[in-house]
Amino acid sequence: MHFSFTVKELVDILGGASLDGPDSIVVNDIASLETARQGDLSFLGNRKYKRAVAATNASVVLLPEEYSGAPKADQAYLRVSNPSLALALICERIERSNQPRRKPGVHPSAVVDGSAQIDAAAHVGPLCVIGERAKISAGSVLEGRVWIGRDVSIGEDCRIMPGVTVNDGCRLGDRVGLHAGAVIGSDGYGYETVDGKHKKVPQIGTVTIGDDVEIGANTTVDRARFRSTEIGSGTKIDNLVQIGHNVRIGRHCLIVSQTGISGSSTLEDHVVVGGQVGVAGHVTLGKGSMVGAKSAVDRDIDAGRKMRGVPVRPMMDAYRLIALHDRLPDLFKRVAKIEELLESKA
Amino acid sequence: MHFSFTVKELVDILGGASLDGPDSIVVNDIASLETARQGDLSFLGNRKYKRAVAATNASVVLLPEEYSGAPKADQAYLRVSNPSLALALICERIERSNQPRRKPGVHPSAVVDGSAQIDAAAHVGPLCVIGERAKISAGSVLEGRVWIGRDVSIGEDCRIMPGVTVNDGCRLGDRVGLHAGAVIGSDGYGYETVDGKHKKVPQIGTVTIGDDVEIGANTTVDRARFRSTEIGSGTKIDNLVQIGHNVRIGRHCLIVSQTGISGSSTLEDHVVVGGQVGVAGHVTLGKGSMVGAKSAVDRDIDAGRKMRGVPVRPMMDAYRLIALHDRLPDLFKRVAKIEELLESKA
Amino acid sequence: MHFSFTVKELVDILGGASLDGPDSIVVNDIASLETARQGDLSFLGNRKYKRAVAATNASVVLLPEEYSGAPKADQAYLRVSNPSLALALICERIERSNQPRRKPGVHPSAVVDGSAQIDAAAHVGPLCVIGERAKISAGSVLEGRVWIGRDVSIGEDCRIMPGVTVNDGCRLGDRVGLHAGAVIGSDGYGYETVDGKHKKVPQIGTVTIGDDVEIGANTTVDRARFRSTEIGSGTKIDNLVQIGHNVRIGRHCLIVSQTGISGSSTLEDHVVVGGQVGVAGHVTLGKGSMVGAKSAVDRDIDAGRKMRGVPVRPMMDAYRLIALHDRLPDLFKRVAKIEELLESKA
Repeated sequence: MHFSFTVKELVDILGGASLDGPDSIVVNDIASLETARQGDLSFLGNRKYKRAVAATNASVVLLPEEYSGAPKADQAYLRVSNPSLALALICERIERSNQPRRKPGVHPSAVVDGSAQIDAAAHVGPLCVIGERAKISAGSVLEGRVWIGRDVSIGEDCRIMPGVTVNDGCRLGDRVGLHAGAVIGSDGYGYETVDGKHKKVPQIGTVTIGDDVEIGANTTVDRARFRSTEIGSGTKIDNLVQIGHNVRIGRHCLIVSQTGISGSSTLEDHVVVGGQVGVAGHVTLGKGSMVGAKSAVDRDIDAGRKMRGVPVRPMMDAYRLIALHDRLPDLFKRVAKIEELLESKA
Repeated sequence: MHFSFTVKELVDILGGASLDGPDSIVVNDIASLETARQGDLSFLGNRKYKRAVAATNASVVLLPEEYSGAPKADQAYLRVSNPSLALALICERIERSNQPRRKPGVHPSAVVDGSAQIDAAAHVGPLCVIGERAKISAGSVLEGRVWIGRDVSIGEDCRIMPGVTVNDGCRLGDRVGLHAGAVIGSDGYGYETVDGKHKKVPQIGTVTIGDDVEIGANTTVDRARFRSTEIGSGTKIDNLVQIGHNVRIGRHCLIVSQTGISGSSTLEDHVVVGGQVGVAGHVTLGKGSMVGAKSAVDRDIDAGRKMRGVPVRPMMDAYRLIALHDRLPDLFKRVAKIEELLESKA
Repeated sequence: MHFSFTVKELVDILGGASLDGPDSIVVNDIASLETARQGDLSFLGNRKYKRAVAATNASVVLLPEEYSGAPKADQAYLRVSNPSLALALICERIERSNQPRRKPGVHPSAVVDGSAQIDAAAHVGPLCVIGERAKISAGSVLEGRVWIGRDVSIGEDCRIMPGVTVNDGCRLGDRVGLHAGAVIGSDGYGYETVDGKHKKVPQIGTVTIGDDVEIGANTTVDRARFRSTEIGSGTKIDNLVQIGHNVRIGRHCLIVSQTGISGSSTLEDHVVVGGQVGVAGHVTLGKGSMVGAKSAVDRDIDAGRKMRGVPVRPMMDAYRLIALHDRLPDLFKRVAKIEELLESKA
């Protein structure tokens, strides 16, 4: 990434900010408070690093409005309501100027079925395969080496990275991002065991993905046994996540890396699930509920509840249990001492 | 999926069923009991949903023989020994009619080495690469974008999905399914540490897969350090599973998503391992043993045992321990009370 | 793998070994002590199998110097300082003779941008895509079906397996191995939530990988939010691992399968992390520290410490806690008995 912004330009990008220091300073790199040098832009995104602000060598620092210190000479503070969001806006500008959007058109090495409909304003990169009756809408970019199955529908302004597979019949909304190696519409894991042998249950459903969804690298989303596995608009899924067949995920959920959601479970809107969580089949996580990392969800969770543990318990109970665990060796000793005392009295 | 079946046709597909209601009803979609509408086929696959049968709007319901209720007007009940299996049979029929099998032949964009043997009745889709001396048998379908290394052998009627890699020397039996992004024959993780540096141990073995095996999307199966990593016939492996080098998996095992089996461990026949389980290296899971989700297997498990926990304990002990955990805060209070009492008496 | 070595040749490959038995014996396969037959080479790599040495049918056995038994007739013992390392040397020789290195050149089916620099001594296999200004150095082998983004730099003698994606701007050192399906430079998981909607934080950094690094199949390494995610020289990462954005991993670390390292965390040199571990964001694992499998690292770890558990505790405390857990049912009974006794006395 190459860029160069004056403080004045930064204020413009942010649509305003409270400036403390000269507006002529120039930045051309971004760094954390600790590693920043002269010419760098930095920011206080996590209160944990508050003390690093006074010590930083960054030329410009994005800070929350309530931060009370003053900049050094040749340094500028920009106070904003949300420094992380402000940085995101600046990075967006840098990204746009550094990474020109792919031009519309189909690369000659792509293998496109004659019945596929590819909008003239879409980009189909090298070595893509587009199946029968698939539809790619305007503004969508398939970087290359992407597999689009039969009857797949891709909305507008999607970005699909190398090595992605979207199997037959799956449907994506607009502005969906699929990262490298993601698999949409793999068969669900369904077998009926007869005489000790596992007979495959055909998975004849599909996957339906809403608008503004992002799905991480090498994440797998299974097609439904019948009807559709659903991922609601605005939901963001990290890398290496497993979404089972007939799972229904609501709008604006967050699912962190290496979590698995078993078949037919439901996440209502605004659910947040930490990393490496396992959710059993046929359970419901209520609206706005949160599950801490590495938990095992084996039951329904009421709306708004924060849960953690294996199996999940209310967050506070889980932390209390961890504290008690540390006191277990002591408890064993105390009980032994009581027994000794009682025996000596007997 | 598009289909239309009369009750009469459904009975034919199932090879018989006990009909309660008119045999002329037509269904053209499948849905769960709760979401089904008129014209839908539904089923009672999980006793948990038994109460939903009376309330369902499905036109036809597949039920276990012992279910005692009666259908509404314009509704038919089909009683069968196993409703899930019955549904599977019907879905199989739908799948066959909706998804025509790929025709034999090699797509012109595939890169096939002159020394490879591809049966005339096999399908090699677009942008596949087939290495030296590889063999693809009759009826097998490589959807496309598949990598087949040198000296690989693929049996009959296999189905290999996009983005799969089968590295040099690996061997698949008949009717094997490899889902998108699966990697067969990656190097095992083996190093000898000398003076703090990790020297790679060459992994010169291969992977041998039996008949009727299914391997999930983005699952990885490492080649052996020497000889062969083995997956027995009839075994079904879910998505994002890791199988280490020199692991031996028996026949008809089930391994659920995101589980990892470390090097040189053995699963005997009919072992069932839940999701997100970790199995240490050099252990044996006896025939028909079961391991609950999220467990850590750090020792051998006797045949037929059901185990759970971190580390694994007999299933009942594990559940008992979970219950005791919930009572730990109370136990601490009780001990404190005893101490208080004894002190007051002292 | 096909090979045939006399004992004499084995001693030569090893650069010396203490021979007990005839030097004319020929081996042409490798097997574990238990499964070995006449004509096989075997080894004692793990003390667990010590008793199997006397019973093995292997013709030649690699043993540690202190092993005291004697070979049978027609059997040879080769005593070395490290039998596993000795086997690795022999396997290396077998690998070299069985798997000829790919010849330099670019396969005609590869799609190479005119501005890319590919060294004449590099191999670019079938259906690779090489982006604008990318650089592939001498001796590197891209097996095929590899995606190399814009401005990527690949050092010398790297080996990149099928299905790998290296996104824009990422840099690899020399002798790096990327296994099938690995993704380098996927977007980090970063969002700012505004009014319940998750706004993407652009990830404009890259990934920098040192020399002699190996990265497993389907592992994902996210690009930095800004600057670079870093993986130090000599570090070996297993399959299906997730490395978050802005993570810094030192030199000569080991990270076992299915582990996840959250954003902005640091592993100093020589850290060892077991399988299925979760490391929270913004923590530091000190030099030479070790984390047991399935642990949750939610805090900094001092250099040289061995930790385990959810959350991590010192290894010995963690084992002690596991032992106490097994005694919990008994503890509950003992407390109940004390209460009973006290009540009877009241």
